[in-house]
Amino acid sequence: MPNAPAHGMAVRAAGLVLAALLGAPCLRGEEGMWTFDNLPAARMRASYGFAPDAAWLDHVRLSVLRLPGGSGSFISRDGLVLTNHHVAHGWIEKISDAGHDYVKDGFLARDRGQELRIPGMEVRTLMAMANVTDALRKAVRPTGDETRDGQARREALARLVQEAERRTGLASEPVTLYEGGETWIYSYAVHSDVRLVMAPEYGIAAFGRDWDNFTFPRHDLDFALFRVYENGAPWHPGAWLRWSRTGLRAGDLTFVAGHPGRTSRRETLAQMEADRDVLNPLRLRGLDRRRQALHGFAAQGPEQARLVSSELLDLENAYKVYRNETDGLKDPVAMAKVAAAEQELRARVAQDPALEASAGQSWALIRKAVQARCGFAREVAMLSGRGSRALQFALGLARWKAEAARPAAQRELGYRTARDMEKLQAGLSFSDTLDAGVETANLADGLQEAVAELGPAHPIVAALLGGRTPGDRARELVEGTGLRAPAARQALFQASPGAVLDSPDPMLVLARKLELLARPYRRQQEELDAVIADHGARIARARFALYGKADYPDATFSLRLSYGSVASCPANGTLVQPFTTFGGLFDRADGWGPSAEDHSWDLPPRWRQLRTRLDPSTPLDFISSNDIIGGNSGSPVLDRSGELVGLVFDGNIGCIPGRYYYDGRFNRAVSLDGRAILEALAKVYDAGDLVDEILGSSSAALQRLSPRAARVVPGTNP
Amino acid sequence: MPNAPAHGMAVRAAGLVLAALLGAPCLRGEEGMWTFDNLPAARMRASYGFAPDAAWLDHVRLSVLRLPGGSGSFISRDGLVLTNHHVAHGWIEKISDAGHDYVKDGFLARDRGQELRIPGMEVRTLMAMANVTDALRKAVRPTGDETRDGQARREALARLVQEAERRTGLASEPVTLYEGGETWIYSYAVHSDVRLVMAPEYGIAAFGRDWDNFTFPRHDLDFALFRVYENGAPWHPGAWLRWSRTGLRAGDLTFVAGHPGRTSRRETLAQMEADRDVLNPLRLRGLDRRRQALHGFAAQGPEQARLVSSELLDLENAYKVYRNETDGLKDPVAMAKVAAAEQELRARVAQDPALEASAGQSWALIRKAVQARCGFAREVAMLSGRGSRALQFALGLARWKAEAARPAAQRELGYRTARDMEKLQAGLSFSDTLDAGVETANLADGLQEAVAELGPAHPIVAALLGGRTPGDRARELVEGTGLRAPAARQALFQASPGAVLDSPDPMLVLARKLELLARPYRRQQEELDAVIADHGARIARARFALYGKADYPDATFSLRLSYGSVASCPANGTLVQPFTTFGGLFDRADGWGPSAEDHSWDLPPRWRQLRTRLDPSTPLDFISSNDIIGGNSGSPVLDRSGELVGLVFDGNIGCIPGRYYYDGRFNRAVSLDGRAILEALAKVYDAGDLVDEILGSSSAALQRLSPRAARVVPGTNP
Repeated sequence: MPNAPAHGMAVRAAGLVLAALLGAPCLRGEEGMWTFDNLPAARMRASYGFAPDAAWLDHVRLSVLRLPGGSGSFISRDGLVLTNHHVAHGWIEKISDAGHDYVKDGFLARDRGQELRIPGMEVRTLMAMANVTDALRKAVRPTGDETRDGQARREALARLVQEAERRTGLASEPVTLYEGGETWIYSYAVHSDVRLVMAPEYGIAAFGRDWDNFTFPRHDLDFALFRVYENGAPWHPGAWLRWSRTGLRAGDLTFVAGHPGRTSRRETLAQMEADRDVLNPLRLRGLDRRRQALHGFAAQGPEQARLVSSELLDLENAYKVYRNETDGLKDPVAMAKVAAAEQELRARVAQDPALEASAGQSWALIRKAVQARCGFAREVAMLSGRGSRALQFALGLARWKAEAARPAAQRELGYRTARDMEKLQAGLSFSDTLDAGVETANLADGLQEAVAELGPAHPIVAALLGGRTPGDRARELVEGTGLRAPAARQALFQASPGAVLDSPDPMLVLARKLELLARPYRRQQEELDAVIADHGARIARARFALYGKADYPDATFSLRLSYGSVASCPANGTLVQPFTTFGGLFDRADGWGPSAEDHSWDLPPRWRQLRTRLDPSTPLDFISSNDIIGGNSGSPVLDRSGELVGLVFDGNIGCIPGRYYYDGRFNRAVSLDGRAILEALAKVYDAGDLVDEILGSSSAALQRLSPRAARVVPGTNP
Repeated sequence: MPNAPAHGMAVRAAGLVLAALLGAPCLRGEEGMWTFDNLPAARMRASYGFAPDAAWLDHVRLSVLRLPGGSGSFISRDGLVLTNHHVAHGWIEKISDAGHDYVKDGFLARDRGQELRIPGMEVRTLMAMANVTDALRKAVRPTGDETRDGQARREALARLVQEAERRTGLASEPVTLYEGGETWIYSYAVHSDVRLVMAPEYGIAAFGRDWDNFTFPRHDLDFALFRVYENGAPWHPGAWLRWSRTGLRAGDLTFVAGHPGRTSRRETLAQMEADRDVLNPLRLRGLDRRRQALHGFAAQGPEQARLVSSELLDLENAYKVYRNETDGLKDPVAMAKVAAAEQELRARVAQDPALEASAGQSWALIRKAVQARCGFAREVAMLSGRGSRALQFALGLARWKAEAARPAAQRELGYRTARDMEKLQAGLSFSDTLDAGVETANLADGLQEAVAELGPAHPIVAALLGGRTPGDRARELVEGTGLRAPAARQALFQASPGAVLDSPDPMLVLARKLELLARPYRRQQEELDAVIADHGARIARARFALYGKADYPDATFSLRLSYGSVASCPANGTLVQPFTTFGGLFDRADGWGPSAEDHSWDLPPRWRQLRTRLDPSTPLDFISSNDIIGGNSGSPVLDRSGELVGLVFDGNIGCIPGRYYYDGRFNRAVSLDGRAILEALAKVYDAGDLVDEILGSSSAALQRLSPRAARVVPGTNP
């Protein structure tokens, strides 16, 4: 998604639940992002006396949507789509213009004619799932040559995907589960006429901004409504989610259906320890330096502060994520379980001669490879853009054109076809003119960091500094380069390799030097990564052979169901309540007063004016023990009847280590309550027609639900 | 105070403020609990353009009160006193009876005739402060014999106190500041006819119970009103605090005047490290065991849960305090400053031959003594009551009566005079019958702990177990003892030493054995403590010689002033707002739903019924950067005009390490806003007369302030 802010559950998060709070042991009861073909039904029934049946699952699967970077769902027979504001943020920005800032001011189509088509936006429904594990195995007879076998497998899988597309007429893609234990083909109906129906103001959708990201108590109205059209008319989906008229209470069973992006829970302990001890500390040092440098820059004046405020929030957010991931990797209770699980697997592998022959040495070999990678991690990190977007562009361009200078067959993967070129260009494109002050401040600090990490005598540092001080060198590079201008960068995409490789632009000169210095590290890294991948696959095969599908696979941005319950959790020295309310929203706005912390807790004008219309006790956000991770943003929360009760938009701090493990003591999904959406639509946005459509009812029913809702704008739909 | 719950700022807390939040260094700008004779006026003026003058200070000093375990203030010309509910809790409990639970249900005197006298409660005003440092120095010519000199100093000081009492006619006591650098005599007017005027329900005074203790955001109405009488009529104090009609905003300058109890900020690094590495971990292991044992006991049924709920909350609270103190001692940034300050002092001592001769070796000697003490800390800890209140009683009694069996002159200090005997009895007295189940569960766990800490072969463990398993031994002791009954314990106070020393009660038999085993450790401990005290005093004298009164002295439960400002702080992964509101109170009650966590966030009936009367945006609690610690509970918060704007009732989590150092990044005082008190009195308690009295105005003025207040109960005061 273009320029979408990389926050909340659109990026990262994770989860196992049911926190018996004090002293009680943490059970793995509710852990898991389960595929729809393999639910732990017996376990669910034991905990909640209920497990979904096939009809429940089919209905939910067909109602849930995949969006770029997130999830969503159909919520009306006329193709209304619910997702998070932060998932849609970039798309809403895309259709804004000088006269209409739909992000800041929100948007409401008063009738369907006003619904705004968003070019490029598409949503997908998972129509069919086919297990091709056996077909793939039959198609490829192993020869013992891993390279040839791998290539043959990839080709066979591509054929199976093509067959699936032919057979179903649907966009199909392979889904690798259990790190290769199973291979499926998922086929999607793709809808590419998606129109914006309603978006609240950014200030209420992201109340508390990045400060509150990954926290709870939370008071965000993080939703937006779209409508899918086909042939110019609203699409009538085969399935959509009915909206609960009762809502949740603490302790109620909750399901989350959506597309969690990536977890690393099957990594070896050695890999996690490398993150904990070497890689994350290196990242954190860098992020800490960079945010301090930018705070210093921002302190120079209001214009400087404005220029870097968004970048600073991203840095703070990344810092929060890595810090809490790292803290999570240091949690003795949680990591003892991770270690015990690895020990158990190793012990069981050791008892099976075939598995032992294949994977017995894999943990040790991965540890060795990971340690070797850590040995030059600082060098690799210092060969990045050093905080300068111009240098980052130059590095990407220099590598691209260096490859392009060679015959296509000799180029590295990803630098060969016309499509590769398109991808490279898209990856490097950005349209703003770079501010010289920001660039210089960032680069000076990035150069200083290289000195601190590698010492002044290191060849990389020598190339970076060219004999100057970091400050002087940064000024010289930023003032000397033409890459700050969009037009200059655009021209270079079309330039011949020779023109780029001969360019006297100082940023490109430096990038070419760094590109040469990077090559040996890259080669070493590729060799070690191959070892890690090969032995990771051996461990995965052993695990799948021993445990099969008793466990769930790591997240792969494919459809999953997690179950849990509405549950408080410990935070900030106390227990936090399971629900917040509109009353709490105003408590925080009042408690900060206006304009605090760059307006992070300011209410939009409409919310200030209409606050007395709202019932303050209406539930706003809630936490549940569902196991989720980035990509789950926009997932519907369902009750046992399959009705929609909420909308996942984040995880709490305890959710961040969910990348590595689920810890039910602390890990919570953060969701917007369905009742808050209706209350806001009816009373703040006068959108009674949408409430009618969502409830599938006339305004008479709506009146019973919410006395004020009927007197707002007349509904435009039947 | 009898049976007062040992929470909030009545026990512990601490503070330096002004959190420039991100990356900015923490300045010591607002640190300090300053004596009224020595304010950092230049520093205050530099920060806030204001420093109190002599009239301001006199007025505040005469308005502020010392209560047992806390602070308070006069707030009307008719002697109305404001303090915390939790400071007064024990006193309110004391005048409750079977028909009136004034703690649970609250209390409001509808006229002065209904105000309830509380036997034994007294408040003190600091009328005079005399610096007797020079007088004391002149009175005692050092002979070089530390024991003789010490005795002579104590006697001279006692004479000076007697003279002060004669001269002023006031209760006077010595105040040692700067660990002996200065000695003062503080003289107090003591008021011992104190009557309860108004107390809110416990459920609103301590909303969130111990869960929320030491946290923020907070929503407590932790206040109570008393009136001082003299000769049967309301006392008209010479000074009282006027109530602000404007209230605070974020960033406003705040003063806290009260009686902080004890800080340990002048301890050496070795002492803090001993707490961090040995003593606190030992305490935390014990607390963790005990709370787990009690949670197990509570899980047996609702009656068992009821029996231990209060003890469990105390344990959780103590665990929270020690854990956060220990975490604070591990904070690298804060502790680097502590270490740097010690290094600087040591370097300056080394440059001065006289100081070097006196104190140069003191740090090393203290380190050695502290390490020696740590060497048998586990033995000393295991010689305590092991979780059994009966054994704890027996240990105290056995030691008392063993001393009492010897001629008075040979007894240890504290076991000689009739007054000593009274104190011993008061210290051991409690009036409830001990539940055999609770006693057995606690003692069994305490015995198990001794095995875990010392091993089964240790003589202390042998004595404790008497050859049985911990469970059997606990049952045998608890079932065999008569000490569970109040009458039996009472009788033993009067019993002859011989009768106690010969008693066959198994708990007393064990206590006598343990008393014998404890003696050598006690002797060793006393010797080491003398070294620590002597060299601590040498360091203190050196520090005072070098720095004088540029710094503030450690807290000694004497009157202090701290300054700071209303300021947010980082917590729970975000920034928390400076103020909470009544809207937030209801958000939390609604968000938990009724009865959650043993009713910790339930609202009293009156608050549920009358919630719509309240303006939800009224500020309820707030945080400020004032440096406080336990004992500051009930301290008024003042603005620069000296008017009352709030009431300190707690510190946040970041305040807990304030025992050792003030860290302005995280340390915040938590106060009740004066506006919330008036809003609640007027709208929930219909106590317009009290609002009138507090504002010193007719109900006309009150009407302007708060439209509903005038229609409540007619005022009874002029």
